[in-house]
Amino acid sequence: MVPLYVALVHYPVLNRKGETIASAITNLDLHDMARTVRTYAIPACYIVTPLQDQQALIKRLLDHWCKGIGKELHPDRDEALKRLKIVDDLAAARDDIRAAWGETPLVWATTAKEQSGALTHRQARHRLANARHPYLLLFGTGWGLAPEAIGEADGVLKAIQGRDGYNHLSVRCAAAILIDRLLHTDR
Amino acid sequence: MVPLYVALVHYPVLNRKGETIASAITNLDLHDMARTVRTYAIPACYIVTPLQDQQALIKRLLDHWCKGIGKELHPDRDEALKRLKIVDDLAAARDDIRAAWGETPLVWATTAKEQSGALTHRQARHRLANARHPYLLLFGTGWGLAPEAIGEADGVLKAIQGRDGYNHLSVRCAAAILIDRLLHTDR
Repeated sequence: MVPLYVALVHYPVLNRKGETIASAITNLDLHDMARTVRTYAIPACYIVTPLQDQQALIKRLLDHWCKGIGKELHPDRDEALKRLKIVDDLAAARDDIRAAWGETPLVWATTAKEQSGALTHRQARHRLANARHPYLLLFGTGWGLAPEAIGEADGVLKAIQGRDGYNHLSVRCAAAILIDRLLHTDR
Repeated sequence: MVPLYVALVHYPVLNRKGETIASAITNLDLHDMARTVRTYAIPACYIVTPLQDQQALIKRLLDHWCKGIGKELHPDRDEALKRLKIVDDLAAARDDIRAAWGETPLVWATTAKEQSGALTHRQARHRLANARHPYLLLFGTGWGLAPEAIGEADGVLKAIQGRDGYNHLSVRCAAAILIDRLLHTDR
């Protein structure tokens, strides 16, 4: 297990107009995030949403793949999806990590926009390799994490830069690239 | 523009039983692959399927996002999705690249299994940086590229290794990680 946890945040995030909202779950986000965290030995990915109907939807999906015929046909999905943990808010994710490690995690936000003072991925990788605390890495759905989520974090990671300024990656792909940059061992 | 092209292959690929099939299109694969290739300045991603009804479905999707209200609300999607090119087979993708470059591309297959003689990602990155030919990188949907597609390629890239042997990444995320490893400039 690595000292890194991940959260896929559905609240507080921005919509297209820049308003703070709770976004809807995307089925494939859950599968992809689960498979990525399992691949890189990340202990858990928190699915953050205060919406109870959305939480019920996630539970149904997890039940399908982690029990009975779904598990039987696709055991690798069960192995991945059981790392997803549904929480109401980021405080609950931090509490859960503290309960496991005996240490409060440091929180890193991610963003597609440039932020002054952001950590390079090399710096973040170095900190993780020498970590004495666990870290919690936040990914925002919708149009990205709301300013209050970024403001409460202990640090922000630099945006993934494309070749010529376009960086509209899906959150699934951005998370995969960033986790690989922080944790790969076989480059 | 970089000297790398990508193909998302729906035929010939394997199903769960190891049979060669034509797989169905996944809507989000198209969006994610388009956004990734646009971010890394890859000129085109070929969507390879011989199935005419699947090709019609892709065209409808592209029309939605690249014309009218879809384009107006999400101009960044149009900019990405217009890099997708629908082709019947891999030969058509190679011909299209040769027409653009005046050179036949060298083809690299990808796989989640270890293959003897596979190129490391560092080696592949070095070749691309010094490329005199274009390259075409194949990603298989379903349970991966069929042996005939791997056998016809000029080379195979090493699998993305997880921390402890689990490597069931989605094709969307595997492609994002591999393209980042081959082309990133801002690590």
